[in-house]
Amino acid sequence: MAKLGIHLIVDAWQAPAKLLNDPDHIRKALLAGITAGEVTLIDLCIHQFCPQGVTATATLAESHIAIHTWPEHGYFAVDLFFCGQGKPEKALQILKTSLQAEQMKVQEIERGFPEVQPTNHLSHLTK
Amino acid sequence: MAKLGIHLIVDAWQAPAKLLNDPDHIRKALLAGITAGEVTLIDLCIHQFCPQGVTATATLAESHIAIHTWPEHGYFAVDLFFCGQGKPEKALQILKTSLQAEQMKVQEIERGFPEVQPTNHLSHLTK
Repeated sequence: MAKLGIHLIVDAWQAPAKLLNDPDHIRKALLAGITAGEVTLIDLCIHQFCPQGVTATATLAESHIAIHTWPEHGYFAVDLFFCGQGKPEKALQILKTSLQAEQMKVQEIERGFPEVQPTNHLSHLTK
Repeated sequence: MAKLGIHLIVDAWQAPAKLLNDPDHIRKALLAGITAGEVTLIDLCIHQFCPQGVTATATLAESHIAIHTWPEHGYFAVDLFFCGQGKPEKALQILKTSLQAEQMKVQEIERGFPEVQPTNHLSHLTK
């Protein structure tokens, strides 16, 4: 496989509703995570929903981080898609600590595509 | 499990490099996908990398769509995270067709958190 990036798919819960509904807190947590993850921010969108919930998407030179919160459930979803030299685990640790999640499920997926197998030229030697 | 969203994690390859390096084409494909997926756009970021590659992040009322392209490999990654009533498969079909991927791998992940199991009050009846 030609591996081009690492994607951490994170579901986190048992977090305080107040933090999950605070767009300024989430902005600061996300920026701190970007610094800790050693990646470069291109664009940031923070959106507060009514009556509750926040979505934050950070477009990175190394792909993206997205956060979606459901304060009413104490739940938030995080995606960290990093290509190149970033440290997604460090960024995630900052987010988990900042948003005070007591429970977290992390799935790690390698992103990329199957490499074409080279023709086995050695087969000619056996003919 | 309290299911709050569906996330399609897509790796697509054997796509024309020219399309994968065209930010205007990707913008149009993404907007068409958003329409087909019946979701609501909040914010859109399209970024062209040098010497090649495009990243597009669409922040949605229903979560997000992200696209990252590697024209030099004919590869692109797509994430469609939809909560609510959207149709992520229809959005994906538009993107696959628009970007002319010949191969595609799709992983579907349910996003949410484990529900607390209720206490089994029936146990009192057996005492």
